[in-house]
Amino acid sequence: MSADATERDVARVVSRVENVGGAAFVSKGVTRTIIGLVGDVTSFHHLNLRTLPGVADVHRISDPYKLVSRQHHAGRSTVWVGQPGQQVPIGPDTFTFLAGPCAVETPEQTLEAAQMAKSAGATILRGGAYKPRTSPYAFQGLGRAGLEILADVRALTGLPVVTEVVDARDVEIVAQHADMLQIGTRNMANFGLLQAVGDAGKPVLLKRGMTATIEEWLMAAEYIAQRGNLEIVLCERGIRTFEPATRNTLDISAIPVVQASSHLPVIVDPSHAAGRKDLVVPLARAAIAVGADGVIVDVHPSPETALCDGPQALLGTELRELAQAVRRLPPVVGRLDAGEVARSAR
Amino acid sequence: MSADATERDVARVVSRVENVGGAAFVSKGVTRTIIGLVGDVTSFHHLNLRTLPGVADVHRISDPYKLVSRQHHAGRSTVWVGQPGQQVPIGPDTFTFLAGPCAVETPEQTLEAAQMAKSAGATILRGGAYKPRTSPYAFQGLGRAGLEILADVRALTGLPVVTEVVDARDVEIVAQHADMLQIGTRNMANFGLLQAVGDAGKPVLLKRGMTATIEEWLMAAEYIAQRGNLEIVLCERGIRTFEPATRNTLDISAIPVVQASSHLPVIVDPSHAAGRKDLVVPLARAAIAVGADGVIVDVHPSPETALCDGPQALLGTELRELAQAVRRLPPVVGRLDAGEVARSAR
Amino acid sequence: MSADATERDVARVVSRVENVGGAAFVSKGVTRTIIGLVGDVTSFHHLNLRTLPGVADVHRISDPYKLVSRQHHAGRSTVWVGQPGQQVPIGPDTFTFLAGPCAVETPEQTLEAAQMAKSAGATILRGGAYKPRTSPYAFQGLGRAGLEILADVRALTGLPVVTEVVDARDVEIVAQHADMLQIGTRNMANFGLLQAVGDAGKPVLLKRGMTATIEEWLMAAEYIAQRGNLEIVLCERGIRTFEPATRNTLDISAIPVVQASSHLPVIVDPSHAAGRKDLVVPLARAAIAVGADGVIVDVHPSPETALCDGPQALLGTELRELAQAVRRLPPVVGRLDAGEVARSAR
Amino acid sequence: MSADATERDVARVVSRVENVGGAAFVSKGVTRTIIGLVGDVTSFHHLNLRTLPGVADVHRISDPYKLVSRQHHAGRSTVWVGQPGQQVPIGPDTFTFLAGPCAVETPEQTLEAAQMAKSAGATILRGGAYKPRTSPYAFQGLGRAGLEILADVRALTGLPVVTEVVDARDVEIVAQHADMLQIGTRNMANFGLLQAVGDAGKPVLLKRGMTATIEEWLMAAEYIAQRGNLEIVLCERGIRTFEPATRNTLDISAIPVVQASSHLPVIVDPSHAAGRKDLVVPLARAAIAVGADGVIVDVHPSPETALCDGPQALLGTELRELAQAVRRLPPVVGRLDAGEVARSAR
Repeated sequence: MSADATERDVARVVSRVENVGGAAFVSKGVTRTIIGLVGDVTSFHHLNLRTLPGVADVHRISDPYKLVSRQHHAGRSTVWVGQPGQQVPIGPDTFTFLAGPCAVETPEQTLEAAQMAKSAGATILRGGAYKPRTSPYAFQGLGRAGLEILADVRALTGLPVVTEVVDARDVEIVAQHADMLQIGTRNMANFGLLQAVGDAGKPVLLKRGMTATIEEWLMAAEYIAQRGNLEIVLCERGIRTFEPATRNTLDISAIPVVQASSHLPVIVDPSHAAGRKDLVVPLARAAIAVGADGVIVDVHPSPETALCDGPQALLGTELRELAQAVRRLPPVVGRLDAGEVARSAR
Repeated sequence: MSADATERDVARVVSRVENVGGAAFVSKGVTRTIIGLVGDVTSFHHLNLRTLPGVADVHRISDPYKLVSRQHHAGRSTVWVGQPGQQVPIGPDTFTFLAGPCAVETPEQTLEAAQMAKSAGATILRGGAYKPRTSPYAFQGLGRAGLEILADVRALTGLPVVTEVVDARDVEIVAQHADMLQIGTRNMANFGLLQAVGDAGKPVLLKRGMTATIEEWLMAAEYIAQRGNLEIVLCERGIRTFEPATRNTLDISAIPVVQASSHLPVIVDPSHAAGRKDLVVPLARAAIAVGADGVIVDVHPSPETALCDGPQALLGTELRELAQAVRRLPPVVGRLDAGEVARSAR
Repeated sequence: MSADATERDVARVVSRVENVGGAAFVSKGVTRTIIGLVGDVTSFHHLNLRTLPGVADVHRISDPYKLVSRQHHAGRSTVWVGQPGQQVPIGPDTFTFLAGPCAVETPEQTLEAAQMAKSAGATILRGGAYKPRTSPYAFQGLGRAGLEILADVRALTGLPVVTEVVDARDVEIVAQHADMLQIGTRNMANFGLLQAVGDAGKPVLLKRGMTATIEEWLMAAEYIAQRGNLEIVLCERGIRTFEPATRNTLDISAIPVVQASSHLPVIVDPSHAAGRKDLVVPLARAAIAVGADGVIVDVHPSPETALCDGPQALLGTELRELAQAVRRLPPVVGRLDAGEVARSAR
Repeated sequence: MSADATERDVARVVSRVENVGGAAFVSKGVTRTIIGLVGDVTSFHHLNLRTLPGVADVHRISDPYKLVSRQHHAGRSTVWVGQPGQQVPIGPDTFTFLAGPCAVETPEQTLEAAQMAKSAGATILRGGAYKPRTSPYAFQGLGRAGLEILADVRALTGLPVVTEVVDARDVEIVAQHADMLQIGTRNMANFGLLQAVGDAGKPVLLKRGMTATIEEWLMAAEYIAQRGNLEIVLCERGIRTFEPATRNTLDISAIPVVQASSHLPVIVDPSHAAGRKDLVVPLARAAIAVGADGVIVDVHPSPETALCDGPQALLGTELRELAQAVRRLPPVVGRLDAGEVARSAR
């Protein structure tokens, strides 16, 4: 309560809270009074306590998310991606490497990128058929034709496919072709789309909004979970700050913070965070060491002709360095290889 | 070019640019070489110059937007909102006051809020039927029933209506009921939705993404414009910063920055920027003085029972103060009253 | 307390707080317990409650500053700047215009700038003799020679002088020459310097750190106040955000936020916030309208030869526009002209 | 140049640049003209090109720092800390672990913390005698008495000491007692202090300002280097963002970015970045993996009685985990143990 709150102001708050079935405990000091509220927080929402006379501020103590919280689900979850016989785990015991081209351009480019990814140790293929681009004049993706290319490449390589969906009207067709639906950073708060992928019956890769707090990100996951789909993998991809040296600032602390609050797996996208290919390998190493459940990386057979994000795509030497890091570091931090676990599970 | 770029590296860039019809001018210094590119920038996109050996960095000099730019449209535009006989202008010669409840809750509450708004001098009614909420457990709006209430209140008060659309599948029904379609801050980069409202044939109120740069905001407007709809009003509503005293930081400089770059009208939402009703009146005064083309404000007949954003809704004294500011300040900065202009235009 | 806190954990917190003379009220819910602490907050600092088992988080409810707070000093303060017979007020009833060159370069340039400032209505002269520059290779100011120029120009124009001090070892000499000591944005958290100006017996102009929260800014003022000097004027000059269109983002909301929390006067520096001269006049108008107690602006007789921040210095047309705004707008928002009040007070 | 720049505007820029000995190359397109400038950039500073008619914007292409740049010093540097016979390296071939209490409180607490640090593998002792605190009511450090405790503990343990200096007037006394002078985050832009430590003849640990860009941080190092002292170690300690889950956001990408631009060693402070002890070990692992040259960590024998930053100090289990990471991970990324290198160098 504010310093000039009256006895009546305090009594009003207490009675409002009790009216909706809560309890209010008054802590009275010399200059200030604090009221502790306990009960069903949802029922407190519509009380608009901040608008009442004498109320200085309202702090929420408990987490606003439930289904994705570790509070009632103490162990960390594993999400399996892929059709029966091809399933790959993403979870606390393994380290999973996802790679592929930013955008699907041609069957040849996609297959070649998939083979590069697979040789480097990747067990899930990423590739965009629908691209949300800042400019309406930029390449927007091949759409349905891209989905078919991805399905063909999956058949040829055996790699499960994750691809982005940007419009609720496309969820059905994407779910028919892909093994995992990606929600991109720009759509993290597109709640209609979150509900649609929650209904689609496929695992979801939920990227963090580039300016979302961790709590908002977990609330976005809660939107999906609320539709009955708990097969959600979170992906940290950098946040917007004042630092211009990198496209975004990779929030590496977000990994252990999320793991302390939520049971969902969480991976890292160093390519989009940095926007510079010379940083991808060191950031991937940092992701493994901090305890991420996987990394997702752009690869392209010829970055200089890429229709999207060429400057961050790995090739040759860097990809070999990454392959080495992904093979050597996870065991040092107690992680199994997701590919081997997948094979032995079949 | 980087300090260690070779003659061949420079020649490669020049030839790539010339291959797509551009011109490349080489400025050679003792330690560094700069290459100035001129021509159709769109054709340079796919060159991926940043991936070429010897290239240190690429700076774009010209603006990436066209249709919304002042470059080829020097005068500032006026957007007229409302059905024939009710139209209200938003533009450079007038100051327009938009007000209403954050969410449509009941016919009575909406009518009462509209009457409060009208008495205070508002000439356009705002009100949300579809609410994008961070929590899936929060009130999500009345949907179609809310649209019908808004249409009824418009008939009773004569105020044109602006309301938010959050899903491309709802654009048609919202356009049937409202006079102006609002794109909220969370959907500024929902490109499918931008294209859908670009096709809908109604004026659009485009809020700035809470973490969008001004350039990205204008690119979002370009998405709408590209579908043939230039009836766009921009709305600054605060950006995300490290300062916790306000919900967002109102970027007041954005108003003159936008007006220097784009011909579109731009208004200010002080209620959502601050999240505190004691700041709404001073920020509205600042908006008028900086040269905004209007303000949009939350009003509610009983903020303490509001289902959405009660703490920022104005009532009684504050609303009277705002009404006074909106009446007195615009003439001092050379603006006409939009309501009077509207009446005399009929 | 965290969800898994035990009875013993709760009892431990209560007993620690009681040991230092505080009171702890326990609010027990189904899943969570909240403990409200009241008493002398300073004594709670060393309890390190966050380190105790079962403690999830600690929120401070009361403000950490005292002397600069409105809590025990409800009215807003006025600071008078200048030698007897020349004093100019900065406070809640007036609007004060401060202007001058970013850096003192020569006697002629300083006098000319001072005369420009005075003609435009300024009543306090600003000018830098010691310049904190990001690059060691940039012009660092004339130092003591600059102070002498300022004192001469003060004698010629009758304008009190405010100038920056960047090192505690220079406070004495600067205080001998100037009427007000400025702490720049880079030194807001230079606590030794704050204490030194607190001891100097002159009014202080305290700029907000470019990345300081409002609370940290008021704590910096508390450092000065604690040495017995309450003649402090705060100056908002923009904060660092992700938006690149302006050098900093002017946090216009900070003015009413500060005025609600502290009794100290607060002014705005639109020149350094924007870094672009085309924004100075609209931002100055916004500052007046939001309720600032003054503005401080860069002027220079020939910006293109300025040794510091030329691109933001006003000249000719813009200065005339600003002069007009400073004359016309303050009365509309209920402010007197500080110059007239100064003259009538003599 | 802006779209409406005239031939004369272009000619004026060219002639100004040529007047100071530079060369200006004009690239003329259909709608825009670009002028590439080459020559001594310092001489361009005072041209104030941004103020000239027709100039739209000025981009600097080359780095503004010289002495700390890799451009003329391709290999990465090693800094040796400690008195003859005790010297420990920080550089590209080793991994160095620095630890100790945030604040020196008593001889016993400092010795105990130093022994904990040493047992865990630390080879340099950190500890604060002068503490810059946001509140004037918080513990400000023991000052000179603290320096003497540190010198005594160094004699007992053989660990070289790094301690913070916050005022230029204290540099001499601190340099007499410590082996390395720390510039804290709040003083990164205190240029007088930077110059004073540049003159002191001891290695410097330069923390990044909590809201400094990497370029500004390197410019701060340039201030020290310019006084003839190149024994500088940079320390990343988190930047201020909108994310509230951690005290600051550790900018892990800054490590490889700095290493690409500067030859100076760079270490990480995970304790101050996170402000939460549960994140210290994962972030230290990430720092090792990304290629940092060391980490600096808070340890305290009894965090719950610590006078400063208790919640982030490590103890018991966490410290053992950290000791293990520091022993096992560096060899995996090709680093030697700094302690062994130090011993073999004696």
